[in-house]
Amino acid sequence: MPDDLAPAAAAPCLSSTIAGTDSPPIPAARAWAARYRGDQGPLIDLTQAVPGYPPPADLLGRLAMAAGDPASAGYGPILGDSPLREALAADISARYGAQVSAEEVAITAGCNLAFAMAMETIASPGEAVMLPAPWYFNHRMALSMRRVAAAPLPCRAEDGFVPDPERAAAALGPEVRAIVLVTPNNPTGAIYPPETIAAFAALARTRGLWLVLDETYRDFLPSEAPPHALFRDPTWREGVVHLYSFSKAYCVPGHRIGAVVAGKCFLEAFAKAADTLQICAPRAPQAPLAWAIEGLRSWRERNRAVMARRAEAFGAALSAAPAWRIDALGGYFAYVRVPRILPDAVAVSECLAAEQGLLLLPGPFFGPGQERYLRVAFANADEATLASVPARLAALA
Amino acid sequence: MPDDLAPAAAAPCLSSTIAGTDSPPIPAARAWAARYRGDQGPLIDLTQAVPGYPPPADLLGRLAMAAGDPASAGYGPILGDSPLREALAADISARYGAQVSAEEVAITAGCNLAFAMAMETIASPGEAVMLPAPWYFNHRMALSMRRVAAAPLPCRAEDGFVPDPERAAAALGPEVRAIVLVTPNNPTGAIYPPETIAAFAALARTRGLWLVLDETYRDFLPSEAPPHALFRDPTWREGVVHLYSFSKAYCVPGHRIGAVVAGKCFLEAFAKAADTLQICAPRAPQAPLAWAIEGLRSWRERNRAVMARRAEAFGAALSAAPAWRIDALGGYFAYVRVPRILPDAVAVSECLAAEQGLLLLPGPFFGPGQERYLRVAFANADEATLASVPARLAALA
Repeated sequence: MPDDLAPAAAAPCLSSTIAGTDSPPIPAARAWAARYRGDQGPLIDLTQAVPGYPPPADLLGRLAMAAGDPASAGYGPILGDSPLREALAADISARYGAQVSAEEVAITAGCNLAFAMAMETIASPGEAVMLPAPWYFNHRMALSMRRVAAAPLPCRAEDGFVPDPERAAAALGPEVRAIVLVTPNNPTGAIYPPETIAAFAALARTRGLWLVLDETYRDFLPSEAPPHALFRDPTWREGVVHLYSFSKAYCVPGHRIGAVVAGKCFLEAFAKAADTLQICAPRAPQAPLAWAIEGLRSWRERNRAVMARRAEAFGAALSAAPAWRIDALGGYFAYVRVPRILPDAVAVSECLAAEQGLLLLPGPFFGPGQERYLRVAFANADEATLASVPARLAALA
Repeated sequence: MPDDLAPAAAAPCLSSTIAGTDSPPIPAARAWAARYRGDQGPLIDLTQAVPGYPPPADLLGRLAMAAGDPASAGYGPILGDSPLREALAADISARYGAQVSAEEVAITAGCNLAFAMAMETIASPGEAVMLPAPWYFNHRMALSMRRVAAAPLPCRAEDGFVPDPERAAAALGPEVRAIVLVTPNNPTGAIYPPETIAAFAALARTRGLWLVLDETYRDFLPSEAPPHALFRDPTWREGVVHLYSFSKAYCVPGHRIGAVVAGKCFLEAFAKAADTLQICAPRAPQAPLAWAIEGLRSWRERNRAVMARRAEAFGAALSAAPAWRIDALGGYFAYVRVPRILPDAVAVSECLAAEQGLLLLPGPFFGPGQERYLRVAFANADEATLASVPARLAALA
């Protein structure tokens, strides 16, 4: 028998992978705002990518009905309920002018989990995945926890933060297994042109890599044109993985529903990760969202226009703070350059939060080389609120 | 520019970790049942650990109300909403005769994700975790995907499948970071005595390891006595991680809510994994479940009695199939030994499913050395259905 009285060893320690993973950044930023005393009016929180309006009553009614149904309380298929897989496949087919089938769609417990499970399907510990920098912090955290290296692809202000396929080609090492693109981008808001996406797809194909396209914000693209033409080439199934979130377009982040679109071979392996990590996505929201894809189409179109106006309003308002410059703008985000005379973005963010009641995330939360930038999630706020942002910025410079 | 006309490389392949991970077993077993032609009456599916009765109307009404509330549609705290953390802390404090605080509870998107996130917090690729064998297949899959080795601790029929701490002590190598115990056990149903759990805790402490206790089925223990005394020793926070699921006790697996109980240092690191993989657990079910912990106490007590009767009924019924022997029984499961004259458990399961319309999972789905066993999830079926099981078994031997 192990001896109860034996001296205890040192308390067990945590994994080196979790110790080497960054802490969640949004709570850290909110701690700065807790020091704000209200001098400039109510706190303006532009940190998290959440829609600043509620889901419509029609959808709420359906969510309630589904959650009250005992059928929703049971386990469902690992890759999602058929009606939602079918509805999303039809939506994508129409939006991208392509033929995507329900069997090529998997429903996940949010798009963060979709990304992590896609990475488990693609890369093993010791390998690498290329992330354009700045990157979405949870993407980097998912790789760190798995001991998959992030191979950074620095994006440049002079390119509007659109990554350059030629520079990617030069930077790819043999350990890289995939290239991840987020468009419209988080954190910069940059919208990648279809020809850039096509060039990355060609690069991935010639190098035998997966191209992972996170299009969480695609419903807020200003144009109705297809975001890219990849799905029109039937060979996309051999190399492209598309990620999507229902959180933003349908204002339901709390219900945790995302999706992966990929070829059947990929999804067969992905189902191992899905069975292990999620068993199934939450059931109750799946039928209401299957309805919403068509049922809320015109509401979504109006929100697309709202977001375009917010982007425009924010751009126009910033002329009242001429020392600050927008280097990229679109989807949900603006990427704002800190005036040269101010210290680095972390110090500036802390000061803006604690003294001006303006909460933004500093560039360094999104990877290397971002010391002069702030991410503004303008989607959170109405136009009147956005109009009051420049005065708080201008108080610093 | 990468050249579109360059010859494509070989299509990218999947990660070696996902390729080396087992496929989800339940769909594989269901494929056998698809061949059943109904000769013996309706299919009896005793594969999945799901309660065979619906959630009560009171809970369904609250789930509906919460899902219809726009507040549930928003993001919530990474580690869960306070009312649910508080209610579960109070429930555990009462059940275990201990003082567990809300800050020591984290709410997760199901208990499978809780396990995977706990493993990310504890073990890095190349390290190992001890799993008593037979094990819960998703535990092994979570480790495989992370390239963490499963160090098997074989359990013996003569011990009622309760793992032996002395044999564990002898088998622990330097690469092991944690010992995982599931009690009541999945797949065997074995209930580990408090003194066994204490011995494992002492072993973990003297070796500087984490002890991870998955008590998903604790609400179905036949006795109301505390399942173990670990929480009464204040130093538990330095080495014990407890996992819990709301799915079984409240009949809500489709709503995907689980929990982790651990010290604050552990949870601070765990929050990195939670932010990355789940952002937050589904919001809508959290307030209804906070209510249910007290509100459904007597309903849960009745179900505890129902499960005890089903266990007894299954045990009694099996006397009609004397060639088959129950080697462990409790919680949700019975672990049944295949008669010597029959082939191995996989062949027997396939035959029972396809010819007898009786769907059980074969032992080899739960790890090495299980070729002579079947897992029976008797919780799924009422007593009348359970009474018809022996005839279908006896048709084979």
